[in-house]
Amino acid sequence: MSLSLSHVFAGVAQQQFVAMINILNKAAEFAADTNSRELELLEKRLADDMHPLHWQVQTFCELGCRGVARLCGDEPQSLQFNEKSFAALAARVEESRQTVENADDQKLDLSVTREVTIPIGPEATLTLNGEDYVLKFLLPNIYFHLTTTYNILRSAGVELGKRDFMGPVV
Amino acid sequence: MSLSLSHVFAGVAQQQFVAMINILNKAAEFAADTNSRELELLEKRLADDMHPLHWQVQTFCELGCRGVARLCGDEPQSLQFNEKSFAALAARVEESRQTVENADDQKLDLSVTREVTIPIGPEATLTLNGEDYVLKFLLPNIYFHLTTTYNILRSAGVELGKRDFMGPVV
Repeated sequence: MSLSLSHVFAGVAQQQFVAMINILNKAAEFAADTNSRELELLEKRLADDMHPLHWQVQTFCELGCRGVARLCGDEPQSLQFNEKSFAALAARVEESRQTVENADDQKLDLSVTREVTIPIGPEATLTLNGEDYVLKFLLPNIYFHLTTTYNILRSAGVELGKRDFMGPVV
Repeated sequence: MSLSLSHVFAGVAQQQFVAMINILNKAAEFAADTNSRELELLEKRLADDMHPLHWQVQTFCELGCRGVARLCGDEPQSLQFNEKSFAALAARVEESRQTVENADDQKLDLSVTREVTIPIGPEATLTLNGEDYVLKFLLPNIYFHLTTTYNILRSAGVELGKRDFMGPVV
């Protein structure tokens, strides 16, 4: 009885990436309804020394795309998001969603025992097997940045509920 | 090549529950250093219609304890946290951590295909197999409430960093 990494990423693409896109679309509606400046909302953060909303979204996408690349043995690419509207940002998230969804299932499943080395600071690295990389590093971070995007928008007044965070469960 | 549910929950007990305890201990230090009233901090929330910090912590623990109970075929119990300090709250989290850690590994691993039915509103229920219950419901919610606890304390000025959220990865 087992889980498979391809199943984990299929779920992330179908649930968490779709949730992120839906949340950004609701933020666009909120901005239109309240005549809020989208650029200001995109710069919102929960504390002065935390990263702003647009960075949370970019990092969420990078974790998914770089994660599947690392597991499949490909070179992980950095993403640069300079989008100035929620609609444009949501379109970039959709591109990343497709990257995660289209990752090679067989390579992902075989990567459970592959060694993955990641930077954890300016000079240190950490080596984990694929399973631990996903469970202990990727998933916590992916959820962190989705939740923080949700929390920034909630604190800014966007009408979101837990179901928006959860995305399509089935 | 496969993951196992017992491995998933061992990780949650060792990483996310330890992170939560550490975060609450840092909140206690912050309150002492700044002469802040702990009761007020425990009631902090990110938006008027969101739940306060103590509720985020209770729900995080409930998800872990009720989750392993459901998967093992036991009756899930509700928790009631009425703690008035961060130290007392951290002690309750440690109790829950032990419940998750001590769950029966064999039952957890066999529960991948067990049907789990959960309430999703006042009258509706959702039935998932054990694997999807963990990946699509439990883990997103556990991370949501850990991240939101972290975000509430960050926005209140507690000096926390991403490593506090991540907890012990290895």
